[in-house]
Amino acid sequence: MGARIYSRAFGLRWWLGAVLMVVVPGYGDVVGAAARVGGVAHRTPVLRSRRVDGEVGAEVVFKCENFQRMGAFKFRGAFNALSQFSAEQRRAGVVAYSSGNHAQAIALAAQLLGIPATIVMPADAPAMKVAATKGYGGEVVVFDRYTEDREEIGRALAEERGLTLIPPYDHPHIIAGQGTAAKELFEEVGELDALFVPVGGGGLISGSALSARALAPACEIYGVEPEAGNDGQQSLRQGSIVHIETPNTIADGAQTQHLGVYTFEIIRREVTDILTATDAELVDAMRTLAATLKIVVEPTGCLGFAAVRKLPDHLRGKRVGVILSGGNVDMDRFAALLAG
Amino acid sequence: MGARIYSRAFGLRWWLGAVLMVVVPGYGDVVGAAARVGGVAHRTPVLRSRRVDGEVGAEVVFKCENFQRMGAFKFRGAFNALSQFSAEQRRAGVVAYSSGNHAQAIALAAQLLGIPATIVMPADAPAMKVAATKGYGGEVVVFDRYTEDREEIGRALAEERGLTLIPPYDHPHIIAGQGTAAKELFEEVGELDALFVPVGGGGLISGSALSARALAPACEIYGVEPEAGNDGQQSLRQGSIVHIETPNTIADGAQTQHLGVYTFEIIRREVTDILTATDAELVDAMRTLAATLKIVVEPTGCLGFAAVRKLPDHLRGKRVGVILSGGNVDMDRFAALLAG
Repeated sequence: MGARIYSRAFGLRWWLGAVLMVVVPGYGDVVGAAARVGGVAHRTPVLRSRRVDGEVGAEVVFKCENFQRMGAFKFRGAFNALSQFSAEQRRAGVVAYSSGNHAQAIALAAQLLGIPATIVMPADAPAMKVAATKGYGGEVVVFDRYTEDREEIGRALAEERGLTLIPPYDHPHIIAGQGTAAKELFEEVGELDALFVPVGGGGLISGSALSARALAPACEIYGVEPEAGNDGQQSLRQGSIVHIETPNTIADGAQTQHLGVYTFEIIRREVTDILTATDAELVDAMRTLAATLKIVVEPTGCLGFAAVRKLPDHLRGKRVGVILSGGNVDMDRFAALLAG
Repeated sequence: MGARIYSRAFGLRWWLGAVLMVVVPGYGDVVGAAARVGGVAHRTPVLRSRRVDGEVGAEVVFKCENFQRMGAFKFRGAFNALSQFSAEQRRAGVVAYSSGNHAQAIALAAQLLGIPATIVMPADAPAMKVAATKGYGGEVVVFDRYTEDREEIGRALAEERGLTLIPPYDHPHIIAGQGTAAKELFEEVGELDALFVPVGGGGLISGSALSARALAPACEIYGVEPEAGNDGQQSLRQGSIVHIETPNTIADGAQTQHLGVYTFEIIRREVTDILTATDAELVDAMRTLAATLKIVVEPTGCLGFAAVRKLPDHLRGKRVGVILSGGNVDMDRFAALLAG
């Protein structure tokens, strides 16, 4: 029962709330998160390319979370969650499971706040992400992502060692923290006609949706998943959370099997649609971003832009935001993908 | 006689000045250039990486001219020069010779100002740079960089067609324009202990030196050349302009054979030293910048950072600026260099 997990962090009120109904965070929680992460997380730059604008026939603004601390938006949610730990929770430590960026994010946030961190990572996670997690002082416990259940391992560690489990996306503090990226984007560029956001477990898009609804009420919000793992698309269209096998895709940050209870509730209410992109489209997007914007974006981070390129008719003449969620890709892999 | 070339643009006063002595531009010219390029050139971001700071043992700030319009600092000088053309010069058009980025810069600046542009480019210039130059509406005339003299070809075209020749670096307006990048850097980060700048013909470093002297008088200024083409280093050390054969290096933006009359005069007066980096060091720097800062920097653009990494003892605990001069590299070549 997922609600049990949160009880340690949120107390009886949240536990009851989770049993009775899903009490999702709101924009006020994003504002609170922004105050907590301000001055710690980077206010990442917004880039544009005339060549991209010309190709798409729209004004496209890129929120560059590949420039975020530890290389991805995940730091925002992690720091927001850990900075709300009680003194007892801080002493005992945090445990997290992650395909990579959440791991680094928790490890770095924990290091900054002086909290011991244990990270459950898949054995085939990119070497760069494992090394970075250890570099931030996190203790790494590995598992096989195709045969073992990371959530179970995480929960067991939490029970055994008295640690607080911070899941990678389905947590109000994580969602609120991730929403600060879109908040910054709208504050910098004003209202947009459409916003494109990568979807793994839905933490980034649900947080983005909270900011969009408050700051750009008419903005369409599109989630984008790897075509091989379109559980979010299926979930949105059928109205309940669909579980799938771990998808095989180069978008390693979106190899999630299902949305969360909190994230699905926000997505269901606020998201216009969930689209997909193939691995080939992600590689092409990655190449274009490197050639025109001169930036390194990991495959998962290219999901939003890959989808934008497929909708020129819908987007023509509009103002379009794209969240580039991260830039953590092994250089050998990046070189191989660019070379095609 | 180089001074003849400038007479068309600068009139008799400059012609006489060039004959009698070298009248170099000053910081006031950089301020004037900043007013001309403001709102047209990008005010490029300044990035930092804790990982780089840790490696070097210093605070390193990167001025990211790879994010400049057309992908390199060269746009600043080109736009500054062309925006000072007379009505007659604008009608007749501009001619430029360049290994790549200056070509694109002149073509784009000319397009923005409605001036016809003819560009003399080496036959082996990166395909991306040739295509971009044509994309900005420039007429491209090719030559063999190992057997023909681009300056002669440029001068002949200027004579035949009545065009104004804008050389890639040895021109007061070019130098003043290039100085606006360092001006922005110092305005954003305050004084620095040392500044590292790529050196080809010396336009960027001489402009940077003008800004450094005005805004950070104690700042050491280091130029960095490819080891295979250290004519600038030789020139500075022996006190006169040394000419070399076109060097073989991956730093295609620094395959110049000699400094200019104006640039050498400023370098001689203001530059602390000129250092070198090997191609292998450039590749390693390029890889580190992609992995840590998540940015694409062309080989020439990596010269400054490559030199910084070799001076940890000298730089320990200091505040160090690095100008990343451009990001125009073919993706296939970039992938091949990253893969090693």
